[in-house]
Amino acid sequence: MTRIACVQLAPILGELAANRALIADALASADADIVVLPELATSGYMLSADEAAAVAVAPSELGWDVGPVVIGGFCERGDDGRLYNSAAVVDPHGVQAVYRKTHLWDREPAVFTAGSEPPPVVETAHGRIGVLICYDLEFPEMPRRLALRGADLIACPVNWPLIERVPAGERPSEQITAMAAARANRVFVAVADRCGPERGVDWVGGTCLIDERGWVVSGEVDLPRARDKKLTPRSDVFADRRPELY
Amino acid sequence: MTRIACVQLAPILGELAANRALIADALASADADIVVLPELATSGYMLSADEAAAVAVAPSELGWDVGPVVIGGFCERGDDGRLYNSAAVVDPHGVQAVYRKTHLWDREPAVFTAGSEPPPVVETAHGRIGVLICYDLEFPEMPRRLALRGADLIACPVNWPLIERVPAGERPSEQITAMAAARANRVFVAVADRCGPERGVDWVGGTCLIDERGWVVSGEVDLPRARDKKLTPRSDVFADRRPELY
Repeated sequence: MTRIACVQLAPILGELAANRALIADALASADADIVVLPELATSGYMLSADEAAAVAVAPSELGWDVGPVVIGGFCERGDDGRLYNSAAVVDPHGVQAVYRKTHLWDREPAVFTAGSEPPPVVETAHGRIGVLICYDLEFPEMPRRLALRGADLIACPVNWPLIERVPAGERPSEQITAMAAARANRVFVAVADRCGPERGVDWVGGTCLIDERGWVVSGEVDLPRARDKKLTPRSDVFADRRPELY
Repeated sequence: MTRIACVQLAPILGELAANRALIADALASADADIVVLPELATSGYMLSADEAAAVAVAPSELGWDVGPVVIGGFCERGDDGRLYNSAAVVDPHGVQAVYRKTHLWDREPAVFTAGSEPPPVVETAHGRIGVLICYDLEFPEMPRRLALRGADLIACPVNWPLIERVPAGERPSEQITAMAAARANRVFVAVADRCGPERGVDWVGGTCLIDERGWVVSGEVDLPRARDKKLTPRSDVFADRRPELY
């Protein structure tokens, strides 16, 4: 069984040192095999381009190689001098992969350059982990490709802005999308959202861990279940695909 | 505004004449512009191959050209002598399209031949209607393709077998999948499920109409809203796709 902690933080806008400390505390107290942190956890979200440039870091500066497998979002300064809305996969041996968000939301193109590479699937000590960042998850092709490439778990750093009134009794629509992605692909999905209003924007606070049947769960999960795509002895969500029709 | 009726019926297994009468009554009393009927509404579901052959009909025999645009499932006898799990789109001018289910569920291949053509998008007096049958909807590529081809509404005849315990407070997972498909594609989704246990199988009874934001609604809907794919002035679920990465 694998212990997955999705950590909902309130980063302080533009305060790199304070956010580093916040993250270090979270990692030290997580008591988990895998820890997922929010999108842009090092910087906050509502940044101007100048403010983002002032707090951008290289992946080697993150310092997340403290024990668990960590998937978290950060404001990246690329070797090319550009800024990226990125997520790193880090284990005790260092940074294993960096993904630059490919679907930029709303005003993000004014600050960040969109990534040009598909997201990684990283073989870790606790299973194969794919990475998506926030708006990426709204495109069903993205979790699908990660699952077809063998991901057991899709780790999603997000900053889900609160822009919609959710009808009584319903889950936030972003969670519904994440649950459907898990179920369609028989993979686990771990979402870390943020909290703490920032320049007039509040957040869904929709942090959740979802099992391969699409239900929100907590605690330990059995990640190898993601390698069985069967719904019944005769029905299999991957073998039953008809790619020639898509 | 368009009035859409999703009609949940309890077909009588193998009783073609009785099911015809049930459907005729439903169409006569629907008071809607568009009526969606369940999968295999003419025949019931738990048929052997011989039983299915005995009640199979050609699309021209349906008799659904009575007023509203009707999308419903039926046990089809093809010109090739094979049996198909099909859905027809019928308006007052006759049968406008027939779709043969392409993703067969569980034991269905013992009875039906899988369709080899993608589902249709039919231009009707009430908007552009795409068609999926039950298990088709579990493959996110299917609603995606219909939406990219211009569907305003995806009509889904289904027979959702009750095979899963739904956690308290949650919607059935099949509905969650349908809601996510609507939201991802900014299209309306109309699901007609069945009821009435049959040879030990019971059904979700998950009939629902879903708007383009992914919420379950009732009554009239504004189908042209499906032609606006914008989430914000800068974010658009179609324009923001990155097909080169999928």
